[in-house]
Amino acid sequence: MSINIGLIGAGRMGKVYAQTLAFTVSEVRILALADLDPATAREQAERYAIPYHYTDYRQLLAREDIQAVVIATPTSTHVQVIIDAAAAGKHIFSEKPLSQTLPECDRALAAVKAAGVKLQMGFMRRFDPPYRAAKQKIDEGVIGTPVMFKSTGRDPVRTSLEFARRENSGGMILDMGVHDFDTARWLMGSEVTRVQTEGGCLVYPELKDVGDIDNAVINLRFANGGIGNIDLSRNAVYGYDIHTEVLGSEGSLLIGRLQQTAVLVMTRQGVTHDTVPYFLERFGEAYAAEIREFVRCITQGGEPSPTGLDARQATAIGIAATRSLDENRPVLVSEV
Amino acid sequence: MSINIGLIGAGRMGKVYAQTLAFTVSEVRILALADLDPATAREQAERYAIPYHYTDYRQLLAREDIQAVVIATPTSTHVQVIIDAAAAGKHIFSEKPLSQTLPECDRALAAVKAAGVKLQMGFMRRFDPPYRAAKQKIDEGVIGTPVMFKSTGRDPVRTSLEFARRENSGGMILDMGVHDFDTARWLMGSEVTRVQTEGGCLVYPELKDVGDIDNAVINLRFANGGIGNIDLSRNAVYGYDIHTEVLGSEGSLLIGRLQQTAVLVMTRQGVTHDTVPYFLERFGEAYAAEIREFVRCITQGGEPSPTGLDARQATAIGIAATRSLDENRPVLVSEV
Amino acid sequence: MSINIGLIGAGRMGKVYAQTLAFTVSEVRILALADLDPATAREQAERYAIPYHYTDYRQLLAREDIQAVVIATPTSTHVQVIIDAAAAGKHIFSEKPLSQTLPECDRALAAVKAAGVKLQMGFMRRFDPPYRAAKQKIDEGVIGTPVMFKSTGRDPVRTSLEFARRENSGGMILDMGVHDFDTARWLMGSEVTRVQTEGGCLVYPELKDVGDIDNAVINLRFANGGIGNIDLSRNAVYGYDIHTEVLGSEGSLLIGRLQQTAVLVMTRQGVTHDTVPYFLERFGEAYAAEIREFVRCITQGGEPSPTGLDARQATAIGIAATRSLDENRPVLVSEV
Amino acid sequence: MSINIGLIGAGRMGKVYAQTLAFTVSEVRILALADLDPATAREQAERYAIPYHYTDYRQLLAREDIQAVVIATPTSTHVQVIIDAAAAGKHIFSEKPLSQTLPECDRALAAVKAAGVKLQMGFMRRFDPPYRAAKQKIDEGVIGTPVMFKSTGRDPVRTSLEFARRENSGGMILDMGVHDFDTARWLMGSEVTRVQTEGGCLVYPELKDVGDIDNAVINLRFANGGIGNIDLSRNAVYGYDIHTEVLGSEGSLLIGRLQQTAVLVMTRQGVTHDTVPYFLERFGEAYAAEIREFVRCITQGGEPSPTGLDARQATAIGIAATRSLDENRPVLVSEV
Repeated sequence: MSINIGLIGAGRMGKVYAQTLAFTVSEVRILALADLDPATAREQAERYAIPYHYTDYRQLLAREDIQAVVIATPTSTHVQVIIDAAAAGKHIFSEKPLSQTLPECDRALAAVKAAGVKLQMGFMRRFDPPYRAAKQKIDEGVIGTPVMFKSTGRDPVRTSLEFARRENSGGMILDMGVHDFDTARWLMGSEVTRVQTEGGCLVYPELKDVGDIDNAVINLRFANGGIGNIDLSRNAVYGYDIHTEVLGSEGSLLIGRLQQTAVLVMTRQGVTHDTVPYFLERFGEAYAAEIREFVRCITQGGEPSPTGLDARQATAIGIAATRSLDENRPVLVSEV
Repeated sequence: MSINIGLIGAGRMGKVYAQTLAFTVSEVRILALADLDPATAREQAERYAIPYHYTDYRQLLAREDIQAVVIATPTSTHVQVIIDAAAAGKHIFSEKPLSQTLPECDRALAAVKAAGVKLQMGFMRRFDPPYRAAKQKIDEGVIGTPVMFKSTGRDPVRTSLEFARRENSGGMILDMGVHDFDTARWLMGSEVTRVQTEGGCLVYPELKDVGDIDNAVINLRFANGGIGNIDLSRNAVYGYDIHTEVLGSEGSLLIGRLQQTAVLVMTRQGVTHDTVPYFLERFGEAYAAEIREFVRCITQGGEPSPTGLDARQATAIGIAATRSLDENRPVLVSEV
Repeated sequence: MSINIGLIGAGRMGKVYAQTLAFTVSEVRILALADLDPATAREQAERYAIPYHYTDYRQLLAREDIQAVVIATPTSTHVQVIIDAAAAGKHIFSEKPLSQTLPECDRALAAVKAAGVKLQMGFMRRFDPPYRAAKQKIDEGVIGTPVMFKSTGRDPVRTSLEFARRENSGGMILDMGVHDFDTARWLMGSEVTRVQTEGGCLVYPELKDVGDIDNAVINLRFANGGIGNIDLSRNAVYGYDIHTEVLGSEGSLLIGRLQQTAVLVMTRQGVTHDTVPYFLERFGEAYAAEIREFVRCITQGGEPSPTGLDARQATAIGIAATRSLDENRPVLVSEV
Repeated sequence: MSINIGLIGAGRMGKVYAQTLAFTVSEVRILALADLDPATAREQAERYAIPYHYTDYRQLLAREDIQAVVIATPTSTHVQVIIDAAAAGKHIFSEKPLSQTLPECDRALAAVKAAGVKLQMGFMRRFDPPYRAAKQKIDEGVIGTPVMFKSTGRDPVRTSLEFARRENSGGMILDMGVHDFDTARWLMGSEVTRVQTEGGCLVYPELKDVGDIDNAVINLRFANGGIGNIDLSRNAVYGYDIHTEVLGSEGSLLIGRLQQTAVLVMTRQGVTHDTVPYFLERFGEAYAAEIREFVRCITQGGEPSPTGLDARQATAIGIAATRSLDENRPVLVSEV
């Protein structure tokens, strides 16, 4: 069985999905693309030989020959597009995060449930081979019972000031940390119940003016008693630095690669290697794998994962961690 | 411009190229496939939606709507298929090695030249991002003048006894070493002029019965005075181990990765990571990149590289190194 | 100038200092040793050819031919021995921590000041070549302004239940974390002002019965705005795991080595290396270096460092971090 | 039992042994020191509180209260000093190499045997913890049967032209390679029977004028059928680079550490670490360990190892490898 997909949004992440859909999954055809900007819509449609393109995504949703959509619009629009797509009976793959507020998350989840369509959220780390291998080893009991989760999420460049505004991005903790929050729940196999945050605007003072920060450390407590810490930074000028450790009663797993080309340069200055520039270089394979899984669930049946509920929980942790920073106190996730 | 390609041979490497052509390069369409085995031809054609399939590759070559072919047949047939493809006016991408004898190499090169078609040889390491990055750094002078080349090429499993026969594979030195010989010439920027080999059948005695060996070390001398050593082994039971070093007057470059998933497991037994299982896991990206380059040369013009002459030289070094082992003496490459 | 030293305490750490003093510093002679246990005192004195040994350390302090003492008694006795040694006019090298309470710390510091003797505290990490090299690079500005401190301190085995009692060890956070608290102040060049702790008894339930925990994560805030996190664990069954990172505005420094013998074992099970068994294997060189510095300060003049005040501050952070865990709230270091 | 040692030679290596003897082995006392240069003899004697010093080593040998000598004179004098020391009934620890010619080696061995004294040669790698750990793992069968030996020996700086003369150093292959030849025999558990060398003067043309080279690769064949390769270089400007691999039928062991301080520096330029400056930083611990073993053999009985015969064999391989380079042919070790 082969399916027709509509791609909604052709910005930074939309372009990633256009290329992924075009070249990686043979059972899929991008039948139509929608983007608010007509030039972008036309340019991407031509580049990947997509037959139809629109500026209004509702026109795309109106096509009966489309079975599923991939949503890569700005975060603030995710919920409405999901609701409309669900109403149109399309299966949905949505970029993270689901939303920045829990009521909005719940509206989207209700619409998906009512329509009976499938929803998969774009937490691509769950499809990264190293993270998958680690999850499998944990499930096999290689490290005994997981007791401590540690994760580092650092970007090599400051985000734009416009994007950094809390009303747009949700703030650094929600925007960047949402991947770590999802990974934490997934690898520890337990819900996060409490968070404590320290953070500040330490390197880019201009972020303060738009209400954001550039560094944070977040303690976690899990329902099963486990603990953890996540550090986030916007000033990893040395490269895109994503790594995670799970310490268990019988050992530890360390997931991470800061090296891109496997070339060591040895000169009088020491031994040097390059680093991973940014997320596409690090997680390109994972983007393809998550789409393949989405397509597999549609064509062969099965419930896609990570689910909308996973996305809601990651958002809840992010809101709690942000509140902990704002109010300088431990915050229960159940409070938010 | 988009082109139609014919794939000749759908065995182990042929399947790799089928998948690569199907999913990785958008300007290409596999129009037809040929394989001696009708079931294989049909199965692969269906899998990748290839319109036409044949058991006789000459039928494929007879199609006027095919501009180029990818040859992935057994080594012993490469020369004849190349000659026929050239006569049919098709551009040619051929798996390595060109041939196991120099006169045969020269017949193929003459036919290509006479027909005026393009020929690119499948030395995929030249398209591997780490090897490319190293080549660029050498060209930039990062390590000064290259003076010593060291390369390790080790397979995780013994080859089949049938393939190991010298009349089929050319013997371990030619079959496995040809990649290192090509890399040596490319990274050192100089021809290999003399070789000295020690080797033996040390782990798999059954290889001796078919005239092959399982371990070898090969000293190299380059035209520019540089020196080198290549070690080859069939018993890297721990994983597919390919790494290369170029030592220069001002530093050294080390290319290699023996780790696949970037997961460290830390238990009472120590710190462990997995290894690269085999060549597809290590060089998958390079196979796509070399095909993209071949297509680019056809659609946009330009001379493909590595050339047929590169393949001839790598074969010459392999023949000399094998003779050095057989006759227990240094052998000049110009002798063979 | 050569000096005579008295060693007080010949238990686990006392034996380390006996050997260090005997073999590493040529200007020093251990003239006398004191230990409550007569057999231990005699055995160590014979082993290192120490002329005099006592069971009462005050007899040792009474010797006029002793210029300095090394104190390696249980933590609860440090303050009284320091006060007595200062009163006897001896220079003092004391194992960490100074004390588990701040009033006691202050009593010791006052006595040292009144007597005008030198006091150096045994925070050996400051003398570890990797930590020293990192400190120097920070001071040179290699990473710009330090903004985040991260440190991991994990023991490979559970401590004894007797030692784990809070009245003996001060609890895991104070006992193990004191090294990280000192390192944090030293490398960040700023005081810790606030802490937030999550922790629990997750692997060794028997520790709960004696009032201790086995895992903790501690968020830090520094006076200069910087932030940090320390994780502590008693269940690093894979080895003694001490590593530290300082992230700055222009880069990051990672200090750590989890490998002892520099041997990689590559088999079908993957690539494995051993780990550092425990603190003597990791910091043996640092113990010698700190004693050499102490002797140098006495023989050539100069103020030893880390000072008693450094020890007091590390204790204060530890008390605050423990209170944060007990009371589930951020605690200002100035509160304690 | 405690012993008195005489140190003969207080040049570069002599100073290393003076410090090692002074601080590392408690059962030893350096009673006397001899060096041709009176100022050096006096200065070192004062520094390490050595009671007697001489310019003629025969005066030192004449002392009845000396049981053993450590010889650290220039290579060309080793044999004569050994013969004299043996005649005086002293046990002997000698720096490598034994001699540059086999007849001279044999004279020394005969004298030692006739006198019935113990002789240990200074191949310190055998006492390096990583090399020892690897040897033990090989003996335990971790990698099955060893089949390939690979070793890299590279110095960070060019030797002096005076020392480089073949009559002084024996040439690069003998001088630098002797450690690798010894390691090869030891780790493979088999004699080297044949060698093939390529080499040249590629970076420092001034070495050619004094008859030396700066880079070489040497193929090895072992009596048990195993093979190997050693590369030597004088232009490892990035650091002192010593590493060794033994590939077996069931796995491989890699011994090596190019990093000194365990600090990673991560900046926009990539991830960098320092390297080991030179042999003292790398093998300091091994120098102490080999002396401890020598003393143990004297005080508690036992035959010291590596033996004089080990040194003779390493010299024989070096002579053969040099001849292979000179005559451009494989050379049997039994020829020399």
